[in-house]
Amino acid sequence: MNTHAKTLPGKMVNGFSPADAAGLDQATRANVERRERLLGPAYRLFYKNPVEVSRGSGVLLYDSDGNEYLDAYNNVVGVGHAHPRVVAAITGQLGRLCTHTRYIQEGILRYAEDLLPTFGGRIAHAMFTCTGSEANDLALRIAMHRTGKRGIIITSEAYHGNSHLTAGFSPSLGERSPLGTWVRRVPAPDSYRFDPAVLGRKMAADVAAQIHDLERHGDGVAAFIADSLFSSDGIYADPTDLLAPVAEVVRQAGGLFIADEVQSGFARSGEKLWGYQRHGVDPDIVTMGKPMGNGYPVAGIAVSADAVSAFGHDMRYFNTFGGNTVAMAAAQATFDVIRDEKLLDNAARTGALIRNGIAEIARRFEGIGDVRGAGLYIGVELVRDRGTREPDSASALAIVNGLRERRVLISATGPNSNVLKIRPPLVFGPQHVDRLLSELETVIKTLPGA
Amino acid sequence: MNTHAKTLPGKMVNGFSPADAAGLDQATRANVERRERLLGPAYRLFYKNPVEVSRGSGVLLYDSDGNEYLDAYNNVVGVGHAHPRVVAAITGQLGRLCTHTRYIQEGILRYAEDLLPTFGGRIAHAMFTCTGSEANDLALRIAMHRTGKRGIIITSEAYHGNSHLTAGFSPSLGERSPLGTWVRRVPAPDSYRFDPAVLGRKMAADVAAQIHDLERHGDGVAAFIADSLFSSDGIYADPTDLLAPVAEVVRQAGGLFIADEVQSGFARSGEKLWGYQRHGVDPDIVTMGKPMGNGYPVAGIAVSADAVSAFGHDMRYFNTFGGNTVAMAAAQATFDVIRDEKLLDNAARTGALIRNGIAEIARRFEGIGDVRGAGLYIGVELVRDRGTREPDSASALAIVNGLRERRVLISATGPNSNVLKIRPPLVFGPQHVDRLLSELETVIKTLPGA
Repeated sequence: MNTHAKTLPGKMVNGFSPADAAGLDQATRANVERRERLLGPAYRLFYKNPVEVSRGSGVLLYDSDGNEYLDAYNNVVGVGHAHPRVVAAITGQLGRLCTHTRYIQEGILRYAEDLLPTFGGRIAHAMFTCTGSEANDLALRIAMHRTGKRGIIITSEAYHGNSHLTAGFSPSLGERSPLGTWVRRVPAPDSYRFDPAVLGRKMAADVAAQIHDLERHGDGVAAFIADSLFSSDGIYADPTDLLAPVAEVVRQAGGLFIADEVQSGFARSGEKLWGYQRHGVDPDIVTMGKPMGNGYPVAGIAVSADAVSAFGHDMRYFNTFGGNTVAMAAAQATFDVIRDEKLLDNAARTGALIRNGIAEIARRFEGIGDVRGAGLYIGVELVRDRGTREPDSASALAIVNGLRERRVLISATGPNSNVLKIRPPLVFGPQHVDRLLSELETVIKTLPGA
Repeated sequence: MNTHAKTLPGKMVNGFSPADAAGLDQATRANVERRERLLGPAYRLFYKNPVEVSRGSGVLLYDSDGNEYLDAYNNVVGVGHAHPRVVAAITGQLGRLCTHTRYIQEGILRYAEDLLPTFGGRIAHAMFTCTGSEANDLALRIAMHRTGKRGIIITSEAYHGNSHLTAGFSPSLGERSPLGTWVRRVPAPDSYRFDPAVLGRKMAADVAAQIHDLERHGDGVAAFIADSLFSSDGIYADPTDLLAPVAEVVRQAGGLFIADEVQSGFARSGEKLWGYQRHGVDPDIVTMGKPMGNGYPVAGIAVSADAVSAFGHDMRYFNTFGGNTVAMAAAQATFDVIRDEKLLDNAARTGALIRNGIAEIARRFEGIGDVRGAGLYIGVELVRDRGTREPDSASALAIVNGLRERRVLISATGPNSNVLKIRPPLVFGPQHVDRLLSELETVIKTLPGA
């Protein structure tokens, strides 16, 4: 088993390693060195052979020589690169006014009026930040203030952000990124290795045990937080009977249930606008980010009145750029496009095409152990042997880098870096699926043992 | 002394209070209620009579009825509302490509090449976030990792951000916003009440005492962080011999010196591009934000190689929107405008006009105890009596709200809310100064005792 990703400090799944610099062409090597000199040692690039990009349109990217790439990975530009309607909305608002929430403005109120009814349940208010990290950080600040506790429960390889607090409950950042002493982990629902019928009970029981441990240490539980697609754990979209029992256990202990929709929200799952809704759970706080403004830095939370009332009374929240007039124009246009172009339906339909196509390839290639996901968030698990289900990181990374050489962009995920992560913009169409599948099969045929 | 701002939870200097709702016109009251319903209890509006804005140009704002306001407060749109060059740069880049730092791109490298030489000293690398809060949060994560300590020293009424970590060292958020147990405060350099000649030694001695206390509690000192204009402490631009001795004391104890340039950076002080340079100090980390992209959410840090090397080796930093292609286009255009329109010089020249004009008004109005600041960051301290220097919050807030009724926008600051804060876009010109001064004098004449 390749546990590279776990044991090397700062190592990233599918990250470029300076050890591979000798293999790069001269221009790329020069840019890599220039980046290191200017941006320092904490930045990472994708792929053994990093990609330079200079233009994008829909699901296509172009380098500065005009070479075309199929983008099957970018979930930030959810409605497609440089969507004209979003560009026009941002441009128009930029020329009129860009300012903050301490003045009265129409745009933020109109957007909140469109957004809030999509949640239902106990959600009452929207608050705006710039990034998903800020949204999760704010959600936990609110949860800690509401409960008077500080314990946080997450899944084993969760990622929830880059702030001090959220990095402290993002174990996927690696062994040397310290977790908070009040953070506890439960195993992700590995539907490939465990009977889906028992995973629901198991997860709620695991959470109950960790709550007990947090209480035993005097911290208590402020919140459980999870992304309902368990993206960085390896992508487990099913079963969907997991999170409602967890929420019940957490609430009985006085904690809040937070749905991190930065990855799974805004139609990504193809079934519901919000991933948590597939689980039939009613969160106290929902956090959102990445695709919210199609690349414009806008993110936020939706929160119940009960969760936020004490926080709002005792403190205040201001974010200079969060919810500014341009951010709201970007978010409104993106929201409108998702609705008007019926991208929820497209995510379901196109996602099924991809999963079915890869399942077909798996009939001819034993290394694919599992194909899973929901909508346009797809995981393909590579194994050395379907019987033992031993993870095969080397093949996964060979496929990711082989596709990159054929100008198709995907990545890998999971604690063993052996799960292909396919997560294209929501405007991916059948012609793009054909290209993706055909290139995937071509690359797989070059693998040893294929 | 009015200590309202300190004692009421969540109360904000110059914030609208729901208790004043009855005095609003019907449309404003309806919008205030709509905000409360949609955005919840944690949002605050400026002024007793909140302002609705719908368009901006240069230093002017307009409400939706077309009424014009003079904006003498907005330091986010540093080069002016809707600056055509910044709008064009963002628009052009949006139509080409909006994506992140895990691909090679030219824009981020070119911007870093322009930005980094402006710091000098030990600064080597630039890293990009979306907000000043994220920049300060990242700076402290790096400092904690570098030093293995967690103590943070700040000034009494500092504001450094809204994340869990940064709110924990932002006492100006109010009495109910908890400070970290590893946070210590030193008094701000009150040049109006203390002999400037002794403030430098006093501040270094105060910091040394707090370092001792942090070590005594087993935390040690990770960093001292300050905004060199001490904005939320009441605006103390002088003396400028304070921070170099502080940095020496902090470094002797193994900590880092962090310059928070979110308020004072990008030419605001009128003397140097970066406020800390007025103090002749050489920081380990510089953080920046607000005006960096003229309203586009872009922020970042500049850091020494020594400070960030262990962090970069052991961990990694990725911010989905931070340093994306559009953020860099916005930052580059803003940087170019500051240089090409000579806004550093304008800040010095126009700032002096304002300060001299207010000093002239002070000859006719005893309530103005002190006029201070640097460049276009100006503080005007209101007192009940020039002998006792007793703070006069009521007059300060009456002036702020009186000016608002005359459509001139400023605010107030300081622990006693008695310091007018005048902080216009850097393109403020002599004609705007005339209007500001004339309206200020008109409002002052309506005050009791004027």
